[in-house]
This record gives sequence, structure tokens and C-alpha cells, in this order.
Amino acid sequence: MKIPKQKVQTVRWSDGAVILIDQRKLPGQLVYRRCRRLEEVAVAIETLQVRGAPAVGIAAAYGVCLGMRGAPATPDRKTGFLRHLNFVVARLRRTRPTAVNLNWALERMRGVIQQDSDGSVSQWRKRLLREAQAIHEQDRHLCAAIGRAGAGLLRSGDVVMTHCNTGSLATGGLGTAFAVLASAHAQGKRIHVLACEARPVWQGARLTMWELQKYKIPATLICDTAAASMMRKHKPAAVLVGADRIAANGDTANKVGTYGLALLAKAHNIPFYVAAPSSTVDLKTASGARIPIEERATAEVTAPFGLNIAPRGIRAANPAFDVTPHTLITGIITERGILRPPFIRSLKTRNLTGVTPTEPLPPRAGVSRARSARWGRQDPAR
Amino acid sequence: MKIPKQKVQTVRWSDGAVILIDQRKLPGQLVYRRCRRLEEVAVAIETLQVRGAPAVGIAAAYGVCLGMRGAPATPDRKTGFLRHLNFVVARLRRTRPTAVNLNWALERMRGVIQQDSDGSVSQWRKRLLREAQAIHEQDRHLCAAIGRAGAGLLRSGDVVMTHCNTGSLATGGLGTAFAVLASAHAQGKRIHVLACEARPVWQGARLTMWELQKYKIPATLICDTAAASMMRKHKPAAVLVGADRIAANGDTANKVGTYGLALLAKAHNIPFYVAAPSSTVDLKTASGARIPIEERATAEVTAPFGLNIAPRGIRAANPAFDVTPHTLITGIITERGILRPPFIRSLKTRNLTGVTPTEPLPPRAGVSRARSARWGRQDPAR
Repeated sequence: MKIPKQKVQTVRWSDGAVILIDQRKLPGQLVYRRCRRLEEVAVAIETLQVRGAPAVGIAAAYGVCLGMRGAPATPDRKTGFLRHLNFVVARLRRTRPTAVNLNWALERMRGVIQQDSDGSVSQWRKRLLREAQAIHEQDRHLCAAIGRAGAGLLRSGDVVMTHCNTGSLATGGLGTAFAVLASAHAQGKRIHVLACEARPVWQGARLTMWELQKYKIPATLICDTAAASMMRKHKPAAVLVGADRIAANGDTANKVGTYGLALLAKAHNIPFYVAAPSSTVDLKTASGARIPIEERATAEVTAPFGLNIAPRGIRAANPAFDVTPHTLITGIITERGILRPPFIRSLKTRNLTGVTPTEPLPPRAGVSRARSARWGRQDPAR
Repeated sequence: MKIPKQKVQTVRWSDGAVILIDQRKLPGQLVYRRCRRLEEVAVAIETLQVRGAPAVGIAAAYGVCLGMRGAPATPDRKTGFLRHLNFVVARLRRTRPTAVNLNWALERMRGVIQQDSDGSVSQWRKRLLREAQAIHEQDRHLCAAIGRAGAGLLRSGDVVMTHCNTGSLATGGLGTAFAVLASAHAQGKRIHVLACEARPVWQGARLTMWELQKYKIPATLICDTAAASMMRKHKPAAVLVGADRIAANGDTANKVGTYGLALLAKAHNIPFYVAAPSSTVDLKTASGARIPIEERATAEVTAPFGLNIAPRGIRAANPAFDVTPHTLITGIITERGILRPPFIRSLKTRNLTGVTPTEPLPPRAGVSRARSARWGRQDPAR
């Protein structure tokens, strides 16, 4: 089966540094940033220089390697190393609350040290880098497998609608939902993609359209507001999206707008698929109601990329994600094939264990704030 | 009953000129433009300096007055005047295809001349100005009546979601859906408005938030993508929108995104109301399938207000409107009260005659082009 060649690498480890594509600059400029310190990686994640649940997990794993360079030279070096590891993991975990891949990658990194209590500090450093590279390499394979599993859903002539960005810019490989599109296209199927822009940060317009162009996949960009009428007009064969966290019952957190698309798809009898690797599955979270939803700065809504589109002093709300109930999901495309409802069973039986946290989930800083601010927040004077 | 004072006048006739607020500049700058020639008014409508179905009708009516100054001094002045009137009406009619108020206003203007075949050219000129002013003044009253009719739907503590701009910037008076909000607020009801931004041109973010601020109505701006999750979270008492054309069966064309909101409202059991004056009703159009949908420049999608958010050379689609089927509409708030389904009956029996064209509807230039370009259009290199 023909597997498309990956054309973009959004995260890379090179010469003791993390090289990131600064996605804020796309599609205008392709700028690579070299991060040498923990804080640079943490801020890169917070400011969406690197985004996409799997890519964030990979960047964070490399970020641990950078951060552990700064382990203090205490008398008992190993104790100091472990204490610093906790600090580094906590710093990276605070960057984004919704996607679970971040937590999953950080727990894997911590786990290799916990399982090697006899190792020396220098051995631990090597193990951490090997683990980060393994997480990265595995994600590449998971993406290819998701592409293979999902491509069979599409036939030549199909229109497919997608949301946000789920390609090489969001993962270590070909992508999740994007891998399905790229695989079907590489198999010679004539598909046409309707890409929703994905306000507020325009990952659809800026990033997905850029990747679709690179892979020469025919596509049309639409405003999020046009999704409903385009569904009625073009009758897509499927809506394909990625995921930031899939709860045990199949409820799925993904880029804001996904829940709405799922409802519109149902109203038009269009199958709605989520594509995600097992690192996105969080069996410890029973349902979507327990998934923390990140509330980001109002400026993303009121002044996107510096363009003032709202009066000063207004209130705005900016939930970065929403939760699509499992009842609206036709199937979940994973590296182990397509899961069907009831997901509470299929997620378990496919052994998609996903996250197995060794400690409680992170405090929901972003969420509690969002909940208390019932009507969004005052937009700071710009 | 307390009627709120109108705080903005978007179209005005003064000293033989049409004074328009240039809405492209809002909310950053409040700029008034003085139009002295037909072409200035036509271009102002095409470029959305003035927009909103009723406001476009009023501006076009005044535009006829400006245009008729240029009637050629033929030997038979009356024949020349009538021929030039046809030219002026045709020019203005071409500006926007979807909203029917434009056509309605132009036919009213033509009608006063047709009904006064004995008048002199100078009498005709006076009649035209009087008619334009009557259309304007009537719209003010219609808005107030719509506000009164709809305010009873809202109770203190209600959350209301709205889309696009339907206020004083869109009409000659208080607005349509906005008049309902402003009236309920003026009656002392504590309401909170969730305003959708309304991509691509952000009439919600730029204009509605500006008007809400002027009237001191509590409100939160959201991205269009957040509408679904905000409905689930805040359980709005209603979604209130305006209309650009209401067909005989109640199918309603309005700003793109309205159809999606209506589907989302249905999924969340939220009543969905359309507010519009009778000039928006078009009994000659049997259903929404016959309403021409304007396809606007792709740059509104790919480079809003000059901000490049998509790669060069991509394809984009930009339908400016969509059609909400009558089955999704709970009620239509008009100056004669709230119409209930079946609208095919209630629209007729309330004598909302709306448009009575004396000639066939305008050629659907924008539409046929949009239909032939199945996948939107190539974005011109910017």
C-alpha cells in the first residue's frame, strides 16, 4: 500500500537542541526556531509556536531533555536530579491543559527514570533522550498506521470536510485526520477537501491549506460559518477531525468548533470520524465533562494577529476546545484500526490504554478560571 | 412601553447628498462619507460601506435621487427621465443580489413615477426624494414595532445569542433582531447577549459589539466556532437573527452561518427567531432554493482586512449568505407581531406583501458564477 512521503517535520532534535517550525509565522514565512532551554520550549508550546496534541507531546519530551541539563549539582546528585525532573515535568505540564498527549509523554519520560533506580545521572540523561526519540519515532509510525486504517473509508470522487490542522505540523509524522486524506490521495483516489478556517487561530486556513498545497491535494478553504451550507451543497462523504483527548466513553475534546461540526454532520447524515493515536486516549477520564477546557487570551478573538476587529473594553470568551459527545461520533480511527461504538467497550478491548498517570492529573488552572469568569473576560485595552 | 433612543444613524440625507457611516472602518474609526453621485452610492453598497438589508434599501432609494440629477436634457425630457430612471435602478439593483429590500425600495421609487404620469420632471424629482424619505422614516417605525413585538419573548436573566449585525447600522431605525434586544434592555430586563463574530467580514465583532456597547447591553463576543459549546454551556433562551430575504414558505436567507446556528439551536432545543420588516418578505419567491446567494471575493476569506491568513494560490469559497429552512424557525418577528408556522399561511394572512415587482427579478449574476465554480475560486495572487 502506497504511503505518502512526509514533507514537513515540525519538531526535530539536532545538536542538543529542539528545532521547531514557528507555526505562528505560517503560511507567510517558514521559520525554524532553535530552543536550547526548557523555558524556550515551554513558551513555544504556550504561544502555539508548536501545537497539535501529538507534536506538543514530542516537543515536551525533548523539552525534558533540555530541562535536565540544568539539574543542580547537589551533594547527592541523583536526589537532586529527581527533584529537578519533577520541576521540569511540572513546568511543561502547565503549558496546555486539554491535550492529554502532553501528560502522556511527560509520564513516559518520568517513567524511564523511575524504572531505572540503579542508573547513574549520566545514564539517566541518555535514557531520557532515547525515550524522547522513541516517542517521536513511534508517533511517526502511529500516523502512518492511522492513515492506512482510515484511507479505506474514502472513495474516489469523495468530498471530505476537515477542521483545524491535523497534519505533519500537528504530529511527528503524516498526521492523524490529515494522514487519512494524504493516504487516500496517494492511493490515487480523487478526493476534494473542504477545510474550515478554524477561528480564532486559523490553523485550518494557515496550516492545513499550506500542507494540502504541499501534498497537492485538491482543496477549498471555507469560513467556519460556511460549513453548514457547504455540507448541504456538497454532501461530504465524511467529516474527519483530530483529537486532543478522548475520554473512556469516547467523548472527544478537540479544537473549538468540532462539536458544532459534529452536530451539523448529524443533521446532514454525514459520517463523523475522529482520528487519533492511542496516546490521545485517556481511560482515566470517564467522560467529556471531566476534560479541562483551556480558556485562552481574549486577544485571539478580538485582535487576531494584531488586527483589531472589536471595540476596546468589550468582553470576549475564548474556549480553545470543545467536547464532542461520543453519540455524535461514527468511528475513531486509531493505529489499531477503526473503533466503532460503543466506544466505552472498543477503546478498552483494543488495548488503547493511553495515559496511565502515576499521579493525579494536573490542577485545572485554566479551567477553574474560565468557569468563574462566566461571561468570558474583559478584553484588556490593546 | 419604553422605547430605546436610537443612537446611531447609518444613512442620512443632507444638503442634497447621502451621508453614510463607512462601516468598513468600524469599530476603529467612525467616519462619515458624503456621496453626491449615483456611482458613489452603488460602490458604497458593493464594498459594504453600507450593509444590512433595510439600510441598503434606504441608501439605494436616496441613490436614485442622486442618480436622477444626471437625467439627460433630451428634447422630450420626460422620456429621457424615464429611460435614465431605468438605468439608475438597474445599476443599483446589480450591487447585491440576495437582500430583497434593495429591490423592494427600487420598485417603490419607480412606482411613484409610474403612478404620476402627468407630473413634470421637476415634480418627479421632488416625489422621488419624498419617497426615499418615506422609506427611511417608515423603516424607523418598523424597527420600533419589531422591537416592541419581540421584547416580550425575553425575560430578565435570559441569555440571547445573535449573529451578524442587525442594529442601527443595518437599518434606518433601531434595527431588527437588535431592536428586540435593545427594547428588552430598555424595559429593564437583565439580558446578556452572546454575539457571534460573523466571519468573514466580522459584522458581529466589529459592528454589533460596538452597538451593544453604545446601548450598554451586557454582551460577550465569541468566535463562530464557539457557538455550539456556548449554547450547551449557557442555554440561551433564544437565538435572534435578522434576514435578507424571506421566501413565501418562510425559508430565510441571512448572513452565512445563520443556517448552522439554526441547526445548533434545534439540537439544543433553543427557540430560533428571525426578525425582519415586511420589506424583507418576498412572496414571489416560493422557497429558499430560489433565492440567489451572493458569492463574494475570496480575499474576504483569505486576507480579511489585508491580513494574509492563507497560502497564496489556494482555492476558497465565500458565499455571503445561506438559507435557513422554515422548519428550523420558531417564529418571525415582524412589525405586525410574531408570525408562527406554517409561515406559508401566516406570511400571507398578515398581509406582509413585501415585494411586488413590476418586472422579473434581477439576473442572478453572482449566483450562476458561484454555481459554475463548484469548488470556489482561485484566490488571486495578493
